[in-house]
Amino acid sequence: MRARTPDGVLLGPAEVDPDAKPGYPGGKAEGEATLAAGAERLAQLQELLYANGVAGTGTAAGHDPSLLLVIQAMDTAGKGGIMRHVVGAMDPQGVQDAAFKAPTDEEKAHHFLWRVRPHVPQAGFVGVWDRSHYEDVLIHRVRGLTSLPEIEQRYAEIRDFEQELVAGGTRILKVMLHLSKDEQQGRLAERLDRPDKFWKYSPTDVDERAYWDEYMEAYGIAIAQTDTDHAPWYIVPANRKWYSRIAVQELLIGALEDLDLEWPPADFDVDAEKRRLAAS
Amino acid sequence: MRARTPDGVLLGPAEVDPDAKPGYPGGKAEGEATLAAGAERLAQLQELLYANGVAGTGTAAGHDPSLLLVIQAMDTAGKGGIMRHVVGAMDPQGVQDAAFKAPTDEEKAHHFLWRVRPHVPQAGFVGVWDRSHYEDVLIHRVRGLTSLPEIEQRYAEIRDFEQELVAGGTRILKVMLHLSKDEQQGRLAERLDRPDKFWKYSPTDVDERAYWDEYMEAYGIAIAQTDTDHAPWYIVPANRKWYSRIAVQELLIGALEDLDLEWPPADFDVDAEKRRLAAS
Repeated sequence: MRARTPDGVLLGPAEVDPDAKPGYPGGKAEGEATLAAGAERLAQLQELLYANGVAGTGTAAGHDPSLLLVIQAMDTAGKGGIMRHVVGAMDPQGVQDAAFKAPTDEEKAHHFLWRVRPHVPQAGFVGVWDRSHYEDVLIHRVRGLTSLPEIEQRYAEIRDFEQELVAGGTRILKVMLHLSKDEQQGRLAERLDRPDKFWKYSPTDVDERAYWDEYMEAYGIAIAQTDTDHAPWYIVPANRKWYSRIAVQELLIGALEDLDLEWPPADFDVDAEKRRLAAS
Repeated sequence: MRARTPDGVLLGPAEVDPDAKPGYPGGKAEGEATLAAGAERLAQLQELLYANGVAGTGTAAGHDPSLLLVIQAMDTAGKGGIMRHVVGAMDPQGVQDAAFKAPTDEEKAHHFLWRVRPHVPQAGFVGVWDRSHYEDVLIHRVRGLTSLPEIEQRYAEIRDFEQELVAGGTRILKVMLHLSKDEQQGRLAERLDRPDKFWKYSPTDVDERAYWDEYMEAYGIAIAQTDTDHAPWYIVPANRKWYSRIAVQELLIGALEDLDLEWPPADFDVDAEKRRLAAS
């Protein structure tokens, strides 16, 4: 699902079809079974990560691993569904969620990375960021909230920041849920048709649609500038919600499998403890 | 499931059978179906709470509601399973988890309520506390970490604190997962039999078993001292994990239903927005 051609050329959102389902030959019904099976596997792997963080066994590099999933998307692309159906399968005790909305005055008075740093997942945890520091090079570029030279500098600062996280033991996955403008129109229309969805709608959603092309361009530049081997971007087609969920789930599973973790060994005498327990 | 007799007399843990399944006539297989059906209902109700928090519609008292679930238990009673199978069914975006472990030096240097206050759920959110300020009257009483007169004062401080939360719009549920000492022995033994469970075991678990009766007494006193109409305690039998899960799920569902929330009305002109959207 990574937006790379086999020869390593990174594609931008313009080259990825939001209706596609790369890497998955099945249909929706089969996809639901895949998602359910994947949920169990993901929960197992996350427990293994957590166990290693709790036990403090350490990796070869001397740091216990953690995992950070960054999700960026246009409105209605399905972030909420990813949270419920993919992230929700993991033990909430080992997941550190953070949602980054419009910055507060205090956040604006700091460097743009200030507000995300406290949410870097600790060893053994999966951090999930619903929007992120990328807002500061996306909406900021599109709406001119920050000057272009400063935006350019931010790409470099983001690369350095993510490199620092990786050096600290955090594995990073960055996902753009890629929706088409037409599909967004349909999803917003549904919110206007259903009183139980009114609360999800804001008139600014329509205002933002006028900048769709500029957003896609800003995504393309941000992705090209910050896609690195240690913190790769994946452009996940999101017109089919069921597909985007199994795609993100698979990315999480793959990242956790790559850590190649084992259950931490006992740091006590198992037989002696069995005797103590039996007598207790 | 609340540990009250019909005439309102509060029972202590000593009067509640950990093997019981009050209020549920079915068996384990049926219980799993009940849990699955309840998960959908709980997720719906939690979305309704979240929608009201986001929309800021306000309750009659002028505060948007939130819900706080406090879970206390002896080790191996199944807190983790409650987190995964009950709490995990709700949208992680609207859930604020907090796990209170042994206090840090900084926490010890503050009033015992200092560390829990930042985790009070904001409007629209469900807060879930895995252990809580009750540790400061449970293990502190059992192990003599705090003097008895100060422990007595803490009960009053807890009542005041919880009253303050309720006044701020937070509904409170407090649950003791009630396990038997024998059942705990079996569960600890399983951890010692399985290398994938070693990480969950600590020799101090056996040390604590020597104080079992003192813990039950401390629970009984704490519950009697802090069970109030606005912040009730429920003693949930926990020898059958499947039962304790549906019991806690039912408590959450009941608390959310009692809020009697409705979907927030549109704060925009729906027809005008439909036209703007169609033209966008």
